[in-house]
Amino acid sequence: MAEALKVGIAGLGTVGTSVVRILREKADSLACQCGRLIEIVAVSARDKGRNRGIDLSNVKWFDSPVEMAASDEIDVFVELIGGELDVVYAAVKKALEMGHHIVTANKALLARHGVALAINAEKKGVFLHFEAAIAGGIPIIKAMRESLVSNQISRIYGILNGTCNYILTRMFMEGLSFKDCLVDAQRLGYAEADPTFDIGGNDTAHKLALLTSLAFGTAVSLDDVYVEGISNISQIDIRAADELGYRIKLLGVALKTDTGIEQRVHPTMVPSSSMLAQIHGVTNALSIQSDLLGELLFSGPGAGGDATASAVIADLADIAKACPHFQYAPVLRKPALELIPHKRARISHHAGGYFIRLNVHDRAGVFAAVARHMADNNISLESIVQKPFIESQVVKIIILITHETTEVNVRQALAAIEKDGHLVAKSQFIRIEPIA
Amino acid sequence: MAEALKVGIAGLGTVGTSVVRILREKADSLACQCGRLIEIVAVSARDKGRNRGIDLSNVKWFDSPVEMAASDEIDVFVELIGGELDVVYAAVKKALEMGHHIVTANKALLARHGVALAINAEKKGVFLHFEAAIAGGIPIIKAMRESLVSNQISRIYGILNGTCNYILTRMFMEGLSFKDCLVDAQRLGYAEADPTFDIGGNDTAHKLALLTSLAFGTAVSLDDVYVEGISNISQIDIRAADELGYRIKLLGVALKTDTGIEQRVHPTMVPSSSMLAQIHGVTNALSIQSDLLGELLFSGPGAGGDATASAVIADLADIAKACPHFQYAPVLRKPALELIPHKRARISHHAGGYFIRLNVHDRAGVFAAVARHMADNNISLESIVQKPFIESQVVKIIILITHETTEVNVRQALAAIEKDGHLVAKSQFIRIEPIA
Repeated sequence: MAEALKVGIAGLGTVGTSVVRILREKADSLACQCGRLIEIVAVSARDKGRNRGIDLSNVKWFDSPVEMAASDEIDVFVELIGGELDVVYAAVKKALEMGHHIVTANKALLARHGVALAINAEKKGVFLHFEAAIAGGIPIIKAMRESLVSNQISRIYGILNGTCNYILTRMFMEGLSFKDCLVDAQRLGYAEADPTFDIGGNDTAHKLALLTSLAFGTAVSLDDVYVEGISNISQIDIRAADELGYRIKLLGVALKTDTGIEQRVHPTMVPSSSMLAQIHGVTNALSIQSDLLGELLFSGPGAGGDATASAVIADLADIAKACPHFQYAPVLRKPALELIPHKRARISHHAGGYFIRLNVHDRAGVFAAVARHMADNNISLESIVQKPFIESQVVKIIILITHETTEVNVRQALAAIEKDGHLVAKSQFIRIEPIA
Repeated sequence: MAEALKVGIAGLGTVGTSVVRILREKADSLACQCGRLIEIVAVSARDKGRNRGIDLSNVKWFDSPVEMAASDEIDVFVELIGGELDVVYAAVKKALEMGHHIVTANKALLARHGVALAINAEKKGVFLHFEAAIAGGIPIIKAMRESLVSNQISRIYGILNGTCNYILTRMFMEGLSFKDCLVDAQRLGYAEADPTFDIGGNDTAHKLALLTSLAFGTAVSLDDVYVEGISNISQIDIRAADELGYRIKLLGVALKTDTGIEQRVHPTMVPSSSMLAQIHGVTNALSIQSDLLGELLFSGPGAGGDATASAVIADLADIAKACPHFQYAPVLRKPALELIPHKRARISHHAGGYFIRLNVHDRAGVFAAVARHMADNNISLESIVQKPFIESQVVKIIILITHETTEVNVRQALAAIEKDGHLVAKSQFIRIEPIA
């Protein structure tokens, strides 16, 4: 196996701590997928004494991220401090000077200095990856940079801020005021003590500015984003929108128009039947419209320590696999020689709910017989509908929705019912998939 | 710029022809993103004389794909013949022997021989990419292989066959029979003359077998997939499901259970409020559940020449960027030095529909004044709702939905209305986003 990829992590908040924990817990699996170990050799944070629930005894500690960036013991500088503090920018610049790869989750830094940093990275021939900076665990940067390489993008739009979507969802679902929802969001940790950056639309604007650059090949231009927040959305608006077939969502939208590129963040009506209208709570979603693909939509967790860490580690894995003079690309995620024999679960063991339809003779005792066979096979019923068959006087239809049971039970019950001679056609059953 | 990546394409049907056309039309943009040209140097197909609308005069023609695979003039062998014919397997094996990278859209080949071919590719240190084999233009393979590297996947499920989803959508929307929908699908080119492979669930099964391997690190095992098609779904089932809050979709589902891995393809009830229920027509969608991310959902075009070609070209671009001893990774899709200055479209030029709310004094002439200001500013109205304000006797609410207009018109009209003195509170407007 090749030499380990040596990683220094600056910032040990929720995301940084998750990255350390997951890189260790999943070290073997990651090494198998990357062809080499990803090893944390250095960290930097403000308070050395704080208990973070992770063992840092074998890791070099730096009080200053700039000093860690200047170290020649790391291959990758992972920036998880966040914000636009001068020290953060200085540290990333220093790391690039040293020829280190960069992985960052810092949308504010990139929205301001992204182009300058990208030029430095490309001059040095190192990676500057930032999957975690937008839409948390949704692999939207990789999709735009690598999968849509032949597509001309015409519009992107999406729900990019979990705090706002959480508040708007609760306002819609529960009829609460904006203020009450905000207070609850703060209590639950979905909103900051000072929520201005989120509810004012600025967080979405930072993300949109980066997405716009990726979509249209233009330099990142945060100052050109038009921004409106959600604080003046009232219950009256939400109810009226609903009556007219709309939901209100805070969207970031960027598109090409005849007069230039439009970038805007504002409360937006979306049709109630659209997929975006079904994005509830802190979930994020992004739609990309392009010439070859029409529309692509991604939804998933937009924030949270583990989801964001997942994106950071994906960036690290890309670097581990691609480092100069090192080529490793297992086709099926794991090396093919490591694939383990497949263990099949029989469909007869499948557990779940079932929709059952029985076309039966309309005579006494049929329903009782059906119910008895269900009970004999330990099948309990969630709902039962019996109705006449439109085209016949002597046939009825029984529809059953079962609680969770097994396929073998259902098949046995139906076999028994068929044996009774009550059915006028083959029984029908369809499995129910638990989907939120 | 580095040497061109030399590509040989086997199979010039709909997808192959699209790949040739797009690689040429977008050659400059692709070279900019990849750091080198992607050049078609050879092709192989059955009928040399057929007019495909593409110029093949400067490209070497091979009657046999195996002979093209044996050529040392190509870097990448692109297999778009499809199916499980011996000659296809032989050609891919030969290309690997020669040390060529492989890009293929052939799910049937991989579902049968994927592990053997992957072992050969990894021994040779070449790429074997197959993004186009599953869900057309949705970058699901890349997401699973590269973005979810630290995730333990527990379940995948999705709509992976456009033909079946088209039929089920029309059955639901229009109340047509399965047979009538199938005939229409054939007429429109959404179903083959022999539709068995699609409607019997086998196409979905091939794709599911590959996804299962990616998800769980197991060897591809097509024979372990339980398969049921959609041909016995009736209108009665669809109507009864609807009444109970469900839609019927053909899903491929794979999950870990206590007894092993369950892989199944069958008509499935999904809640009407779920995102999968909103996937209409030939669109595909896939959901991935994992420990760090919870749920990720992707939807997009599952088939079609351009969408599939987009995936093939993304695979080629990955190879172009990563080839041994060659490192190129523009951070923002294009090299940062090539980014053009941003041209901003002002929000005042934004064109679209608007939701407008006015809280007005309940007195004669107010509505007429509002209507006149709208007309004066060229705003036509799609709907108008006027109702009393619950908490007041003397205030009414007017809600307007406009047809497409511009922001400047809306703002001017609202300014004029405010000037009239009819409003009891600031006017509210919310932009409407056109979403399908």
